[in-house]
Amino acid sequence: MPYQKFLDAYGEIHDLRMTASVLHWDQQTQMPPGGGEARGRQLSTLGGLIHDRMTSAEFLGLLADAEGADLDDDQRAAVETVRFAVDRATKLPGSMVREMTLVESRAFGAWIEARQARDFSIFQPHLERIIELTRQKADCFGWKDTPWNALVPDYERGIDARRIASLFAPLRSFTVDLLDKIRGADQISTRFLDRQWDLGAQGEFGRRLIGDLGFDYSRGRIDIAAHPFCTNFSVGDVRITSRFDHRNPFEYLFSALHETGHALYEQGFRPEDERTPLAECPSLGLHESQSRFWEVTIARSLPFWKHYGPIMAGYFPGNLAGVDAGTLYRAANRVEPGLIRVDADEVTYNLHIMIRFDLELALLERRLEVADLPDAWNAAYKDFLGVTVPHDGDGCLQDVHWSSGAFGYFPTYTLGNIYGAMMTRRMEKDMPDLWDKVGRGDFAAVLEWLRTRIHRVGMRSLAMPLVEEIAGEKLTVEPLMGQLGRKFTDIYNL
Amino acid sequence: MPYQKFLDAYGEIHDLRMTASVLHWDQQTQMPPGGGEARGRQLSTLGGLIHDRMTSAEFLGLLADAEGADLDDDQRAAVETVRFAVDRATKLPGSMVREMTLVESRAFGAWIEARQARDFSIFQPHLERIIELTRQKADCFGWKDTPWNALVPDYERGIDARRIASLFAPLRSFTVDLLDKIRGADQISTRFLDRQWDLGAQGEFGRRLIGDLGFDYSRGRIDIAAHPFCTNFSVGDVRITSRFDHRNPFEYLFSALHETGHALYEQGFRPEDERTPLAECPSLGLHESQSRFWEVTIARSLPFWKHYGPIMAGYFPGNLAGVDAGTLYRAANRVEPGLIRVDADEVTYNLHIMIRFDLELALLERRLEVADLPDAWNAAYKDFLGVTVPHDGDGCLQDVHWSSGAFGYFPTYTLGNIYGAMMTRRMEKDMPDLWDKVGRGDFAAVLEWLRTRIHRVGMRSLAMPLVEEIAGEKLTVEPLMGQLGRKFTDIYNL
Repeated sequence: MPYQKFLDAYGEIHDLRMTASVLHWDQQTQMPPGGGEARGRQLSTLGGLIHDRMTSAEFLGLLADAEGADLDDDQRAAVETVRFAVDRATKLPGSMVREMTLVESRAFGAWIEARQARDFSIFQPHLERIIELTRQKADCFGWKDTPWNALVPDYERGIDARRIASLFAPLRSFTVDLLDKIRGADQISTRFLDRQWDLGAQGEFGRRLIGDLGFDYSRGRIDIAAHPFCTNFSVGDVRITSRFDHRNPFEYLFSALHETGHALYEQGFRPEDERTPLAECPSLGLHESQSRFWEVTIARSLPFWKHYGPIMAGYFPGNLAGVDAGTLYRAANRVEPGLIRVDADEVTYNLHIMIRFDLELALLERRLEVADLPDAWNAAYKDFLGVTVPHDGDGCLQDVHWSSGAFGYFPTYTLGNIYGAMMTRRMEKDMPDLWDKVGRGDFAAVLEWLRTRIHRVGMRSLAMPLVEEIAGEKLTVEPLMGQLGRKFTDIYNL
Repeated sequence: MPYQKFLDAYGEIHDLRMTASVLHWDQQTQMPPGGGEARGRQLSTLGGLIHDRMTSAEFLGLLADAEGADLDDDQRAAVETVRFAVDRATKLPGSMVREMTLVESRAFGAWIEARQARDFSIFQPHLERIIELTRQKADCFGWKDTPWNALVPDYERGIDARRIASLFAPLRSFTVDLLDKIRGADQISTRFLDRQWDLGAQGEFGRRLIGDLGFDYSRGRIDIAAHPFCTNFSVGDVRITSRFDHRNPFEYLFSALHETGHALYEQGFRPEDERTPLAECPSLGLHESQSRFWEVTIARSLPFWKHYGPIMAGYFPGNLAGVDAGTLYRAANRVEPGLIRVDADEVTYNLHIMIRFDLELALLERRLEVADLPDAWNAAYKDFLGVTVPHDGDGCLQDVHWSSGAFGYFPTYTLGNIYGAMMTRRMEKDMPDLWDKVGRGDFAAVLEWLRTRIHRVGMRSLAMPLVEEIAGEKLTVEPLMGQLGRKFTDIYNL
């Protein structure tokens, strides 16, 4: 049967992609420094091989046969998913893919080094080469208005720079306005945070929370890495990383819960979809809606802290004696324009994204030289957030994305917030006792709601139509602004 | 140039093999239980792909072109190495290789489970299937006398079952005789070992020792796994595992030092040989000669314990107060026929190997049914070592090898002891102050001797001729018997 033959061939490509993911995970969590050079070659060979397979006459033939066969809706969705990827891949020569993989792998090592040394010059030549190759890649795909538009479909389909800008504009004014009001209000004290937080206890409390949310430890694990991330090698092997800060327990916690949100999605695909194109997420924005939902909407809510405040105090008795749930809740939501995206509060977070969106557009359109990136970055942080970047390690070297050639990726974070707010509004209607459940640490129904409406859908729908269907309205920033407005008006008595 | 083209193509195959090694390492040290099924498929796909590449018309053509070119000695050695592997691989159909990889991956999971549950029946059907496939594999290669002879060249070239038996026969009589004398002597007390040994301190002391021997931590790491092993993904990324026993500090220590011996070899290839066929070891016996040299010859010597006894006491002050170097040395060399190969003393170790050699011959020659393996195993342990196997977890389920289809592998352990003793005799002549250096914890010259004569040679020579050249004599068990006889006559006052 043509569909089964196509699926078998796809399965081998899928195995190779998962293999590359294992190599990446190992590189970021386990590999000794001396392994970097060879790992780059291994990933390059594997990347080239995957590309060659995807674009081979044999696989294209099997795909075409499957497309011509009598398919049910699921099969049709699977075939269309692969058609999209193949059409993208066939536009890139194998030699370019191999070179990009090699360049990115070296750039990753240089990024780690540059970040530690707080020295952009170590990373600069690598980033220049990456942008050069990314431009070439965009040219291979073909583009209108901006080369950026050629890249974003790898992360989010059905959107372009103009649409992003039109969503960001009202959100930007709203945020700047809200931030102004917050600046004028009484500030939240987080003095109780200023002490040592035992790393062992942080890990144990985090592990417990992650389990409470529904993460299945028999099908995953948590590790420490410089950049928190989630990866999966199958529905039965989903891994997250986080990083510790002994001066701040929220760093580990919210990073880990963010990645848990991603992981719950990956663990939630239908087992019978495993190794088929259906067990995938249609967009990074949708993926991010899950991570931000758990990290922010749930874990930075008052009911959550009413339940987990006393439990957390049990893990840190010396640090949290006499600290009530409201204090923890307000500390977890303290708005303070800062340097680091992943540490940012809910209000300023989207400003970090907008800065990156502007800069990557400028880099790709050659309006900005790589050498001038640190200055442009620092100026934007001054303008938007009013903060001074002390060194590039906390500036333009803080994120891994560009080192892996991921241009077009950043806006999907804010898109995730937009999707998430749209879904939450619907969830609150469907589940009137939502916040009572959260207040009891009972997340089973919440997870099941997400599993049914999103996770198990996999690639059966693209992201935007799925969110619009769930929300019952067209893509809009209004719910996100409403959510932010209500929450912070309350917290800051605006 | 034909040689360079051949080398580039080989390099990609090498990358894929190293990739498979990463997946195996991850499976044994990191992977959650739920990842097993998909990992089996990933390894199967990768194994099939490697096999297809090795046996592809394209690669065979490049190899033939290289063979026909004007080559220097190194290039000739590289080409011949690959020719041997390709000739082996082309005899196996790709479908069989894929099936074996899948069957072995499942068998590995079943072996873990069976060992924990001490229940051979969980593993039995997997082993039956493996032996069936291994027989088929031997038939594909073709064989004389016994199918075992078709398998051993994957591990050791230039030897067969008859030669092994002729080496083992005198060693067996000698060992049985020595063991009898030891049984009649005053036994060594190890009562000071019977207490809790802090796992953290075990790890720290082990880490220090491993570093002292010359292991480069920037090009490797140590982890915990059910079965201690060493693997490498490049000369810059060599990883070892060991396992803890909180009742016995020697378990972790000697396992780790054994694997360190392997790792020093892998870290010792010439960097310029990386990703070529030359950066490989010509035989498992030669590899084992390195691990046994460090674990046994060096780390179970009196000068070693004179130096490290006081240092070890610093890591375990409560446990080792008043225990002198001689006591540690004798405890580390206590001869006691036991159940577990990897815990075996220097005298009985080879008996464990001979039992496995006999049994795997019988299994492959169908003189023994898999269902009868536990009984045959237990009977052999009664006969040879005088011990009663309480359950299969400490019996025929103790080793990983057969679960990965590695038949023909076990005798290389004793061959390693034979090679090692031949080399040590030569090293003692070359370096008259060898034991003074060991007594100062100074291993630099010892490691350099091995690097020059063995590690850096890589695949430029086969194992047996290399050892014979170093030792200046033909393959013989005499140095091993001499080494054992002198050491244990002294320790037990025979």
